[in-house]
Amino acid sequence: MRQVHRSLQVETRGKGLYDVTRPVGQALADSGIRSGLATVFIAHTSASLVIQENADVEVQRDLERFFARLVPDGDPLFHHTEEGPDDMPAHVRAALTQTSIAIPVLEGKLALGTWQGLYVYEHRNSPHTRKLLVHVLGE
Amino acid sequence: MRQVHRSLQVETRGKGLYDVTRPVGQALADSGIRSGLATVFIAHTSASLVIQENADVEVQRDLERFFARLVPDGDPLFHHTEEGPDDMPAHVRAALTQTSIAIPVLEGKLALGTWQGLYVYEHRNSPHTRKLLVHVLGE
Amino acid sequence: MRQVHRSLQVETRGKGLYDVTRPVGQALADSGIRSGLATVFIAHTSASLVIQENADVEVQRDLERFFARLVPDGDPLFHHTEEGPDDMPAHVRAALTQTSIAIPVLEGKLALGTWQGLYVYEHRNSPHTRKLLVHVLGE
Repeated sequence: MRQVHRSLQVETRGKGLYDVTRPVGQALADSGIRSGLATVFIAHTSASLVIQENADVEVQRDLERFFARLVPDGDPLFHHTEEGPDDMPAHVRAALTQTSIAIPVLEGKLALGTWQGLYVYEHRNSPHTRKLLVHVLGE
Repeated sequence: MRQVHRSLQVETRGKGLYDVTRPVGQALADSGIRSGLATVFIAHTSASLVIQENADVEVQRDLERFFARLVPDGDPLFHHTEEGPDDMPAHVRAALTQTSIAIPVLEGKLALGTWQGLYVYEHRNSPHTRKLLVHVLGE
Repeated sequence: MRQVHRSLQVETRGKGLYDVTRPVGQALADSGIRSGLATVFIAHTSASLVIQENADVEVQRDLERFFARLVPDGDPLFHHTEEGPDDMPAHVRAALTQTSIAIPVLEGKLALGTWQGLYVYEHRNSPHTRKLLVHVLGE
């Protein structure tokens, strides 16, 4: 049994989902681990992780439509406004989604379902560089 | 230190929670691992995982009542409607709950709290066969 | 590769976030593991885990303001009311946040982002003793 750490950067361009299935799969391939568990962690509190459908891009847009309605930018409920009207909503969205996701590894691949993709969910309006840590365990 | 992979199937019959504490515990028992970590992953984007109270079944119904109100079927907000009025809401519900959950293993058992049960949360109206992957690590 | 289990108790005093970054970091330091993965699990269904911003305490209050509006105590939607008007909302809040979070370990430390803190999110109004299990894997 052994482990490998990898760090990935993702450039985002405003609110929405960014597919990271391929770079995370590449980090796994680089590790040489064929069977085990891959854990992905995002080192931020205004972006998060989700596994979503990878077939119809409209699903990703609908997810964003839902969150834009549930946690609208500039909501007068929020007191923490110094970092902009989209900052506190971003923290709430991050709390409602995931900071870490673990995916089994089988035959050297992420054992995702047919329609599953792994996404960074950017919650801020401006471009950001987001850091992911990937921990691969196995043999 | 060693690891075991198991795959489980769960038959669902419409929206709601399906208790998988026992089959996951059985997968753990079969592994022979007495101390470690069990990670459960669901290979779908319209069903998810939650840990919820296992005592009063009304808790599970109330959880469903809440989600039915928060993410109603047929919401005109959504554009992705080809797969039915309950499909996009199912993806949103999955994003709001969990795709993977890790549970420590102590004395050969899932170290769940007294009132904790592990559930597959089905978000579609029709019956589905849902696939879980269980990764057990330890010794 | 080796593993260490630790159990921590957290005393809460009503709804809100309780920073556990330091005690979890101490459990990691005690383990002597320098590189690997730390998985934190909360053994309850009316309290949960979140990673949130650790800089402005107003962020934590705004998060609570949001959840108090989204899942209000005493909501007539809920049938499970015997344990008080804040019990079923607590279960819903727990489902919407996390029961387990995995954090990579690098150079003997939790590899959290600059602004990330790990919190127990108490969802009940009265004081509770909450139990966390920490599993550290690595070398």
